[in-house]
Amino acid sequence: MSSLVSIEQLDRVTIERLLRRAQSFLDHQREGKEEVKVNGTAVNLFFEPSTRTSLSFQLAAHKLGLKVLDFAVGNSSVTKGESLVDSLQTIDALGVDVAVIRHPDNWPGLLKGEVLNLSLVNAGSGIHEHPTQALLDALTIRQHHGGFSELKVAIIGDIYHSRVARSNALLLERLGAEVAFSGPEAFRKDDVARYPWIDFEQAIAESDVVIMLRIQHERHEHLFDTADYNKLFGLNHFRLQQMKKNAIILHPGPVNRDVELTDEVLRDPRCKVLQQVNNGVAVRMAVLEWCLQGGNNEQLVSA
Amino acid sequence: MSSLVSIEQLDRVTIERLLRRAQSFLDHQREGKEEVKVNGTAVNLFFEPSTRTSLSFQLAAHKLGLKVLDFAVGNSSVTKGESLVDSLQTIDALGVDVAVIRHPDNWPGLLKGEVLNLSLVNAGSGIHEHPTQALLDALTIRQHHGGFSELKVAIIGDIYHSRVARSNALLLERLGAEVAFSGPEAFRKDDVARYPWIDFEQAIAESDVVIMLRIQHERHEHLFDTADYNKLFGLNHFRLQQMKKNAIILHPGPVNRDVELTDEVLRDPRCKVLQQVNNGVAVRMAVLEWCLQGGNNEQLVSA
Amino acid sequence: MSSLVSIEQLDRVTIERLLRRAQSFLDHQREGKEEVKVNGTAVNLFFEPSTRTSLSFQLAAHKLGLKVLDFAVGNSSVTKGESLVDSLQTIDALGVDVAVIRHPDNWPGLLKGEVLNLSLVNAGSGIHEHPTQALLDALTIRQHHGGFSELKVAIIGDIYHSRVARSNALLLERLGAEVAFSGPEAFRKDDVARYPWIDFEQAIAESDVVIMLRIQHERHEHLFDTADYNKLFGLNHFRLQQMKKNAIILHPGPVNRDVELTDEVLRDPRCKVLQQVNNGVAVRMAVLEWCLQGGNNEQLVSA
Repeated sequence: MSSLVSIEQLDRVTIERLLRRAQSFLDHQREGKEEVKVNGTAVNLFFEPSTRTSLSFQLAAHKLGLKVLDFAVGNSSVTKGESLVDSLQTIDALGVDVAVIRHPDNWPGLLKGEVLNLSLVNAGSGIHEHPTQALLDALTIRQHHGGFSELKVAIIGDIYHSRVARSNALLLERLGAEVAFSGPEAFRKDDVARYPWIDFEQAIAESDVVIMLRIQHERHEHLFDTADYNKLFGLNHFRLQQMKKNAIILHPGPVNRDVELTDEVLRDPRCKVLQQVNNGVAVRMAVLEWCLQGGNNEQLVSA
Repeated sequence: MSSLVSIEQLDRVTIERLLRRAQSFLDHQREGKEEVKVNGTAVNLFFEPSTRTSLSFQLAAHKLGLKVLDFAVGNSSVTKGESLVDSLQTIDALGVDVAVIRHPDNWPGLLKGEVLNLSLVNAGSGIHEHPTQALLDALTIRQHHGGFSELKVAIIGDIYHSRVARSNALLLERLGAEVAFSGPEAFRKDDVARYPWIDFEQAIAESDVVIMLRIQHERHEHLFDTADYNKLFGLNHFRLQQMKKNAIILHPGPVNRDVELTDEVLRDPRCKVLQQVNNGVAVRMAVLEWCLQGGNNEQLVSA
Repeated sequence: MSSLVSIEQLDRVTIERLLRRAQSFLDHQREGKEEVKVNGTAVNLFFEPSTRTSLSFQLAAHKLGLKVLDFAVGNSSVTKGESLVDSLQTIDALGVDVAVIRHPDNWPGLLKGEVLNLSLVNAGSGIHEHPTQALLDALTIRQHHGGFSELKVAIIGDIYHSRVARSNALLLERLGAEVAFSGPEAFRKDDVARYPWIDFEQAIAESDVVIMLRIQHERHEHLFDTADYNKLFGLNHFRLQQMKKNAIILHPGPVNRDVELTDEVLRDPRCKVLQQVNNGVAVRMAVLEWCLQGGNNEQLVSA
């Protein structure tokens, strides 16, 4: 069995096979085809609140035929790093096949040197990575634009605190897209500073893909009034008109209505928020299958 | 697919078919017959605490062959009206087939004008409706009395705050029963005032069905000492003797022992509280199946 | 159907059959054999926090083919004794087949005289019993030592507050082992005082099985600094050397690292903590199957 903890571990061939496999799950579903079932058990270990990602993984596991166990994290000491190791060793000894983990820390670092038999899937590791979000965004882009080379992608908002920004930038560059960040300058720092940073109005006018990040109200209070945020760095009636006709708008959700996106933007056909959600289940099916089959690329070919 | 949000939407023919289908599930179970499986996924969205209704829907879904996903509502901002819409759009985009919803507000009103593909089942909407409770109560009544015409039904207690009272009154009148309310006069107001209101002792003496409502201690503190409630508006040794021999006692549960009902009442053969619980699973199976099959009455006929 | 609430109810023949059945589940799993499925539904009722026991029962139920329902206990009034009865009557009326219960009180005592159709499995009753932990410990011991007669077992730590100590002592004596308690003298009182109590260093040197109990930090604060506990009553580099070469170390988990056991002890091949976790699933499969088949020993023979 294999694990998916970071986009770094995926070469271009593997990424493309995962996307193709996800697309085949969507096609089979439309055609009413039954999927081949994978036996096994999964557990969702979410140390941060989540609705859509948790449900999406649950649904993906169910559709593959995996049993999903209920792990109520609660408010317990389990949120401390050391006990993540102990929890996972126990879950491993129980015979669980895959643990889907979301954690406020960069949890793969906490497991360095530990030996585990089960697969680990990263559903969010602090501000560092969210690889399945990047894969589902890539699938959504490919469905619309057909490919990635020479595609201009702008990722906009609180880049610094965003695992979505980091995983997307890594993945989309690997696939040949031109990635730039944009948004409040306060967030252009540290590792994030190595990417191109462009003016917001330029990002809107020139991009083929506009990825808007969710702002966390509590962090931004001292920087902006949320009522102002839309005017400064959000999408609205005016900016829709500046965008390319064939561009698309992505957002990892949940959207703060009238902050990152107005209702009008959500209704615009270029806005693919719900298509992203739908693609997420298929991408997670592909990832879970890949992990349980040892990450063997050959098995994906036959898909 | 169809939704069940209110008793208002069900005509008499549909109600009777749902009851017949529920009864057939009970009969099949007794005979050890396997049910035909319905494929699909359900999610329980409970924004208010619940034990029996949540478990009852889970069990009904499992018995039908539906996968039930885990949605931990928590204490989050998701309890606000606007985000119910967003949550449901996401759940819909994930490909979930049916959402069972309990919410402190009259939630169907919050969804006006929204387009959703999935079925919605009302497991409680503020003080307004609880249609599956009314259906299971009707099934329990029919099992005992054989029908509804000329049946005298008294619903007793905190009528004003009770979605059970409202849904039962609507449903049982539609089926031909004579429904009256009784209990503390303080609760006879607004929409509730349009139903007949009878004296409590008369209700006990003349009714064929006595539906006792759960009192919410926190609301009634200023009105009654709970120790007095049983004397004034509860059932006990004395009132059991006033009741008709062939009457039955219903209660939506959980019972406050010695408040609405004494232990002696709970042991009386006329008290059908546990039979209601048992009927609840079958009624919810019928409702879920009906929703997933588009609410088509013809499909129910063949049951 | 039958219930497993206490080791007291199991004679030696039944215990040995349960252990043999659990071992056969482990063997089948290694050989990739499918288990015969048991139909039915289970609910986990955990009124105390638990990770491993809850997951272990969930996994055992899933592997047997039982549906596991989600019962969110929350912080509600359901934790009071009287409503445990009401909750179980409701769950019974819903048609659930087995309830796995962990409760801070000696819950079987709360149910005296109540009539329930469903099976009850004790996953922890206050300080009194934890029968499946004792069974899984016994299986781990048998796997290593081949049997129990003349085996010296020391149970060490906060004996007084430990349901693990009580259930293990009952079970292992029934199987022919010599059980002694050891640890801080403050915990040698009441019912616990009837067992032999030996010096800690003697326990380490002479025992074939050393069962270390988890200490609850909050209870021991006034007695020991936790930093001192390992020196006084924990296992470490020095004490590993005093132990028999063929002895084994058990711990119900989760381990307080560097309190009951140091990291070196956890890595010692005599330490069977993860093997216990693995055995737990198999033991609970055997127990659930036994309960659902009415506790009939004959059915276990054919296993």
